[in-house]
Amino acid sequence: MILLKIGGGATINLKGIIADLSEVKEKAVIVHGANALRDELAKKTGYSKKVLTSVSGYSSVFSDEEALDLMMMAYAGLKNKRIVELCQQHAINAVGLSGLDGKMIQGQRNKGIRIKEDGKLKIVRDFSGKPCAINDQLLLLLLEHGYTPVLSVPIIDENQTAINSENDDIVAVLQQTLRAEKIIQFIEAPGFLEDPSDPASLVPLIKKSDLPFREEQVGGRMKRKILALRKLMENTSCAVIMADGRSEHPLYDALQGKGTLIK
Amino acid sequence: MILLKIGGGATINLKGIIADLSEVKEKAVIVHGANALRDELAKKTGYSKKVLTSVSGYSSVFSDEEALDLMMMAYAGLKNKRIVELCQQHAINAVGLSGLDGKMIQGQRNKGIRIKEDGKLKIVRDFSGKPCAINDQLLLLLLEHGYTPVLSVPIIDENQTAINSENDDIVAVLQQTLRAEKIIQFIEAPGFLEDPSDPASLVPLIKKSDLPFREEQVGGRMKRKILALRKLMENTSCAVIMADGRSEHPLYDALQGKGTLIK
Repeated sequence: MILLKIGGGATINLKGIIADLSEVKEKAVIVHGANALRDELAKKTGYSKKVLTSVSGYSSVFSDEEALDLMMMAYAGLKNKRIVELCQQHAINAVGLSGLDGKMIQGQRNKGIRIKEDGKLKIVRDFSGKPCAINDQLLLLLLEHGYTPVLSVPIIDENQTAINSENDDIVAVLQQTLRAEKIIQFIEAPGFLEDPSDPASLVPLIKKSDLPFREEQVGGRMKRKILALRKLMENTSCAVIMADGRSEHPLYDALQGKGTLIK
Repeated sequence: MILLKIGGGATINLKGIIADLSEVKEKAVIVHGANALRDELAKKTGYSKKVLTSVSGYSSVFSDEEALDLMMMAYAGLKNKRIVELCQQHAINAVGLSGLDGKMIQGQRNKGIRIKEDGKLKIVRDFSGKPCAINDQLLLLLLEHGYTPVLSVPIIDENQTAINSENDDIVAVLQQTLRAEKIIQFIEAPGFLEDPSDPASLVPLIKKSDLPFREEQVGGRMKRKILALRKLMENTSCAVIMADGRSEHPLYDALQGKGTLIK
């Protein structure tokens, strides 16, 4: 079993990844992003991202109802269906599902953040949260019958409402069900870089025990990624490959040892 | 078994339909449109519909790649996922799928239309076609395991490409697999009207044998609907109810005998 996480960057070579996957004998589950597409659609439709600052000084994106609408269009709609179409063209019988479908990815909605508005303290709650469970029955039913699940946000919360969630966290929860031998994460870089600005500074191997150090070392989204990896690897002994999604044969390359191996 | 076709008009009471469905004991399959949403999105993104006129004088909408993108966003994305969410909120374990997913709805792409451009005759082919088969195995697998399939365009053609198709034709092909006792079509009108401009002119019953006459009587989209119904009823002895999707309890009303019964 292979678990593929495909980043939502504009330069990811989806065709190459799916063509490579069609040559692989193992079963697979795909989790994909669509952030570039979502941002492009937001621009076209005139939606502007809302960022709130909590009283404790943290900034975060506020996922309102319109942000969820955009997510459904870009992630569960256009990107998911074009990936499914690509799979079908490569004889992979893919089934694209959001976390809402059959309650495939179940989560807990975030409690809200404390902000100050016009001098008054208030708590605002958006449509975001953390994944906590998978509908194993449906996922395994599809896999047993030869289908390749292609999963995307939104996920479903405890009140059956659509919420946003981090794909890295979804992969960690999926792995508890799938126990995949390999998890491959396609990003828009050669792998984990010692210096983010230098593509030649690839770190070919990160030991599980080095993850806390690496988490300290980095910032931004990569910090979140490493945190999610650390949590994932607490419960499982799989190999994670962080690989370049932009090459001609991204999956073939990753399976040949390119990118960063974390184990 | 009930087969629900929910039109994509802006005034359809989706919440009412799904709330009613949660009270019904029978299994159901939903096929939905999203034309109002698609048109709204097209407007926002600046996409303008392309209409071609064939050398024989017929006008038709040309579904180019961008039109399919819009369809994936509006139909398979936003509308499908919001319906699935509504279902989940009413304890219906819905799974939303396009025709691409698991090749659920398979079709034949149209051959193209002959047009004249700059005085030259040429054939142009868009991404549209006719549904011809269903992935029975996947549809029944979901139904047997307690899931309610929520289906939308696009469908998949003989070359595994996404194509547009008419929902009325999809319902007819689905019925060959499902053999539903009742097919309920929710539209933005009280049912079939003797005079389309007079909501009071509802025809409560249309006999199967009257369909050819009714097909002659009407124009536009209703003509296509009646043609599809005629084909559907050639192979099955179900009851079709054309009902108002705008009332407070659209499904309850339809099951109580409101609307137009065709049998």
